[in-house]
Amino acid sequence: MKTLVIGGAGFIGLNLSEALLAAGHCVRILERAGVQPPEFLRNNPRLEWVNGDFAVDSDIERALEGQEYVFHLASSTLPKTSNDNPRHDVISNVVATLGVLQKSKEAGVRRIVFVSSGGTVYGQPQSIPITETHPNHPLSSYGICKLTIEKYLELFWHLHQLPYLVYRLSNPYGRFQRPSSAQGAVTVFLARALRGETIEIWGDGSVIRDYIYISDAVSGLMTSLAYSGRERIFNLGSGIGTSLNELLAIVSTIVGTPPNVIYKPSRSFDVERNILDINKLSRETGWAPKVNLYDGLKLTKDFLTKGDGI
Amino acid sequence: MKTLVIGGAGFIGLNLSEALLAAGHCVRILERAGVQPPEFLRNNPRLEWVNGDFAVDSDIERALEGQEYVFHLASSTLPKTSNDNPRHDVISNVVATLGVLQKSKEAGVRRIVFVSSGGTVYGQPQSIPITETHPNHPLSSYGICKLTIEKYLELFWHLHQLPYLVYRLSNPYGRFQRPSSAQGAVTVFLARALRGETIEIWGDGSVIRDYIYISDAVSGLMTSLAYSGRERIFNLGSGIGTSLNELLAIVSTIVGTPPNVIYKPSRSFDVERNILDINKLSRETGWAPKVNLYDGLKLTKDFLTKGDGI
Repeated sequence: MKTLVIGGAGFIGLNLSEALLAAGHCVRILERAGVQPPEFLRNNPRLEWVNGDFAVDSDIERALEGQEYVFHLASSTLPKTSNDNPRHDVISNVVATLGVLQKSKEAGVRRIVFVSSGGTVYGQPQSIPITETHPNHPLSSYGICKLTIEKYLELFWHLHQLPYLVYRLSNPYGRFQRPSSAQGAVTVFLARALRGETIEIWGDGSVIRDYIYISDAVSGLMTSLAYSGRERIFNLGSGIGTSLNELLAIVSTIVGTPPNVIYKPSRSFDVERNILDINKLSRETGWAPKVNLYDGLKLTKDFLTKGDGI
Repeated sequence: MKTLVIGGAGFIGLNLSEALLAAGHCVRILERAGVQPPEFLRNNPRLEWVNGDFAVDSDIERALEGQEYVFHLASSTLPKTSNDNPRHDVISNVVATLGVLQKSKEAGVRRIVFVSSGGTVYGQPQSIPITETHPNHPLSSYGICKLTIEKYLELFWHLHQLPYLVYRLSNPYGRFQRPSSAQGAVTVFLARALRGETIEIWGDGSVIRDYIYISDAVSGLMTSLAYSGRERIFNLGSGIGTSLNELLAIVSTIVGTPPNVIYKPSRSFDVERNILDINKLSRETGWAPKVNLYDGLKLTKDFLTKGDGI
């Protein structure tokens, strides 16, 4: 299948694109101007690289030409930066994505898959683990924008029969995640511990998150390709909660020395606990996560120390 | 109290402003350039009229100066037009309102009251009457934008302690509603019947809506002034469902002659039934609607035939 991956040079995008290519699909990556394909993708004849801005109609139109399937992974903000400028967040994510939906509809794509955020669309959980029907009270603009895009996907399905699936992803980590981008605690902690640097923690370390190794996240996203059921929104996580202090303990074991840790005041957009209920995706597709946190951290350590093609 | 009413020259705004003035408050109306105060408001010393665009930071900043309380009633779209251009909807409503929230926070207003939409934020109801905890699956961009603004109000409360209340209003009708603006079935039907014109109905007339007379809607909004409880979102309707055909029958009785009716195909953004559960507002504030549909239609007829100060 001819598949467009919007934001394909990001952490999730590179892993997903590689898996799509390995499964025999043709992949076109749309990435920001200036971003070049990494070494390991350069000579694949089924990989096409397009530089452009998904917020620009002519760019997305060009990127969609001849494509049957769309993964939309692009986001201009992070949860912690989104609250600084919500207007920018709405314009660069919601408004921009409306262009993607409009052009995907016109191009007649078979499905658009949107990576939403299991960590932010629910807000403070009223029950654990969190099911897909849990109320939505995001504590960040990032979460509101993800949720709003979900609603527009539903609307475009209702009005124009544009097929879609939403995956509310928990906290992915692993290969190709850049510690410098501050995207995830696991990779940042591990990289700092490996370099002997101090690790900063917001709060007392009791905050619980659902961490998923990237290959499990990718296999979860890949279920969309064959899925023909009636569900539209899936949680995608490990289904297991780990506190920051527990995470630090594993990091310590893997690195071999206990890291220096500074505890800082907790942040207003951090919920105490977030663990996703992943039964719906398992039930509907047979998918299950395979890499536990210890093994995932070892794989991430290998990536951070060896580079692994990027 | 010094109260800013954004969109105060609209149907709800005029009625609300009049009630606020009658209750002894000072009212500043912010309205689009070119819109002039109606006769009945012109000589009130406690009424201030400001022309400007709530989407423009300097305009909203000027409008907020010295104000303690904000009613935000402005909307640039209607449910039926919003789906034509969702991008415009998001920019002119969500992004514009983010400026209002930011400036209200900076101005230290005591509360912002937002009029949301009980008819569109829920989508196809899973149960009737609809309570405030019903899931949100809007079938129009209008409903998505209202919902997104609600989420940002919640976020600004969480991050900046900007107090707010949301009223999810059903279908208000009555005095000051202009039949030409296509805002509500009641006024449009009545005006057409009075002029002997044909009435167009989308669908077979079985569509059920919750109609609320404007004085009841206004008394509902006024409950915000004294409310000090912990709730943030209230349905505001009559709590009674009326089909379009039932509405036509009452119109017929009041006008004295049966109107000509054409039935057209139903529209994709119309849900079959929408009746709000109004118990929460009643329980929390003692508010109750007072005007039944028959009496409300008679009052509306009086307004349409006599003008009533506008």
